[in-house]
This record gives sequence, structure tokens and C-alpha cells, in this order.
Amino acid sequence: MLELYSAATPNGWKATVLLEELQLPYTLTPIDLGSNAQKEAWFLKINPNGRIPALIDHGEDNFAVFESGAIMIYLAEKAGKLLGNNAKEKSQVIQWLMFQMGGVGPMMGQANVFFRYFPEKIQPAIDRYQNEGRRLLTVLDSALAERDYLVGENRGEYSVADIANWCWAHTYEWSGIDISGLDNLQAWIQRIRERPAVQAGIRLPARGDKDTVTQTGQTIIQK
Amino acid sequence: MLELYSAATPNGWKATVLLEELQLPYTLTPIDLGSNAQKEAWFLKINPNGRIPALIDHGEDNFAVFESGAIMIYLAEKAGKLLGNNAKEKSQVIQWLMFQMGGVGPMMGQANVFFRYFPEKIQPAIDRYQNEGRRLLTVLDSALAERDYLVGENRGEYSVADIANWCWAHTYEWSGIDISGLDNLQAWIQRIRERPAVQAGIRLPARGDKDTVTQTGQTIIQK
Repeated sequence: MLELYSAATPNGWKATVLLEELQLPYTLTPIDLGSNAQKEAWFLKINPNGRIPALIDHGEDNFAVFESGAIMIYLAEKAGKLLGNNAKEKSQVIQWLMFQMGGVGPMMGQANVFFRYFPEKIQPAIDRYQNEGRRLLTVLDSALAERDYLVGENRGEYSVADIANWCWAHTYEWSGIDISGLDNLQAWIQRIRERPAVQAGIRLPARGDKDTVTQTGQTIIQK
Repeated sequence: MLELYSAATPNGWKATVLLEELQLPYTLTPIDLGSNAQKEAWFLKINPNGRIPALIDHGEDNFAVFESGAIMIYLAEKAGKLLGNNAKEKSQVIQWLMFQMGGVGPMMGQANVFFRYFPEKIQPAIDRYQNEGRRLLTVLDSALAERDYLVGENRGEYSVADIANWCWAHTYEWSGIDISGLDNLQAWIQRIRERPAVQAGIRLPARGDKDTVTQTGQTIIQK
């Protein structure tokens, strides 16, 4: 059995959306970020970085996996899905996954920090990260010209690259990033949002509601 | 033949240090970041994100690879080295690679921006990123307790996880990050610095010197 420790954030959704899409059985233990549960000693044994999501594969001698990008590769390889149809496509999936891990995620994350949470209003920092966020989303928009998904022949095929980038990109409004004119990106956001596994994955766990119990397919949520 | 487009930055070094370690034949085309060569149309066809490093594998139908983390996985898989000795170790290598891609790299990068380059001196932003950089390096320090390298049995075995994190961590002084007391980290920085492939890799290309020609093993540097 797979055990996921997560919370309602873009990085957290990457794991739940993927697990729902793969229809792998798992339990979900919500982590209360408000009380800093992710910094407690028991959790640091699973993820020494003290961040969500983290995964334990009980069927593999309780193997622990941290970093959302590594969890995505681990799960997709386990299921043999969503990593492209050959070695080159797999590399391209990993390239766009890395683009999210090193670019879209950190930069939109910093936009959120300075736009939403920072005690002082520092306009040059807000501008820096909102501009960089828009630039990165523009790169996605260009890559999606005449394509439905980031990687694959013809119009592309849904992969972990789409899930990883979507989980951040669709929160553009929260980051205060303007996506007007990015028509390919907007259509892709909507296309992916319509997937049942995406709708299920982003409800798990519900923001601020640790007791939510939702079942989709074989998913079991621990209270 | 492999063709690397790079420059003297931590992300650039990740590719050259790895290529030197793997002793794969390659040519290196220096990219002049000062003139924004990485934003020119010909380069965006290789990396739509307009960043270095980028790679073309001419032996694989001119297959292009962008994002330093994806280049590392691509090259290590090509050589069959430095990715751990089994599936679990490979996942752990990818976990620490993602830790660098999503954490150490972006956060030390932002420390550099506000500490070194930003037109205004914004102390709260400098503090934020130097503190987060120190926190992330402390995570590495803890992981290296009684170990020589991040992943592997006993005291561990050198892998792309070490290379990726080292290429950023060893520049702590440039970021203005204090690593006093992080003895495991300091020893690991020195241990890796002594490797001939590391010394060769971080000379390529020399900072600000586009015409440097250095040959190590089968390496050929284009003028």
C-alpha cells in the first residue's frame, strides 16, 4: 500500500492528481501545515527537508520518497504510465517536469510569498516574481501552440509533465499573474481541469479541513 | 557526438562536471550570457526557456535536451553510471537531484539576485534567501552525517545527486551564506572539489573568456 502525506498546495496536488489518474490504491494522511507538522521529528525521517508531499511505499519495505518531482517519477514508473511512449519522450517529460520543479514552482511560489504573505509590501520583489511567472507561463503557452499536451506525437499525450505544470499554472490568479493573451495556456488549463482525476485530486485534502473523507475509485482517505 | 551549450554558472557546471566524470566525448559551445545569446531564436529552438545549459545529442537524430536536471539524468542513463546501483537508489538519487532543482538552486539563485545584482538593497529579501539557503545546506549537512556521499550503502557512492548539489553548495560564499558549523557539508564540499573531473568541469567554459580551449580526456572545446 502507498501512503501519501500531503496538504492542499500545488506541490501536494501533484501527488494526489497523479495517484487519482493512475488509479493506484493509497491512503492519504493530511499534514497540518498551520501547526508545522511537517517539521516534526517523525516526519523528518520520511522527508529530511520537512516539506509536503512525501510518500511511503509499504509494499517496498516502507521505502520513503520525498520531493514532489521524484514522487511523480516513482509513481509513474511503478504504474508504467504517463511518462511518454519511448526513451526520447520520457526524457522530454522529465525536461518539462524539471522546468516546473526549477522554474514555474519556485518562481510562482516566491510570487505568492511577496504578493500574499510577506509582512512588508516590497513592490520590486512582487514585480520580479509576477513578471518571471508570466514569462515562464508564456514559455508553456508557446510550447502548447497547436498541441493539446506538452509531450508526444501529433497533438501530444497527457503525462506527468502536464500534471506538474498544471498544478502550479492553474493557480495564476492567487499569484497575481496575468495570463491574458496566453490562449494556448488557457485552453490547456481548462482541458486538464475537466479530467475527473484532476477534480478528485485537487479536493484531497480539502484546504483547512483535516477531516474530509473522500473516496474516488480505490482511494481511501485517513481521518 | 554530444554538443553542450553552456556557461560558467552552477547550472552550467552541473553538465560539464558530469560529462568530464563520465568521460563522454562532447563539444562545448560557450554561450555569452552578457549579450543574451541564450534568448536568440536559434537557441530557443534548443531550449524554449532560453537558459543554459542545453544539449544536443547528434548521435540520436539531433535530440535536444534542456533543463540541467534532465540533462544529468539523460547523460547518466546514456553512460549507465552515477544513478545508484538499483531502482531504489536511483529514486534516491532523483530525490536529491530534485531537492537541488527545486530548493538549493532556486533559493541560492535568489540570494545571489538580491545580494549581488538587484538595483536596490532590500535587506528583508536578502535575509529571506540567505536564511533559506542556510536551511537547505543544513539539510544536506544532516544527510551527510557519517556519510561521504548522499546516496548508497555504507558511506555512500558518488552520484549525480552529489554533483548537482555540489555545483551550487560550493558557491555559498558568493551567495553570502554562512556555513560555519556545517562540518559534514564542508568536508563533502572539499572531498568533491578534489576530483579531477570536478576541477576540469568548473573551468569549462572559463568565466568571461569565450576563447579558452581546454582538453581533458576526450573533451574538445569549440572556440
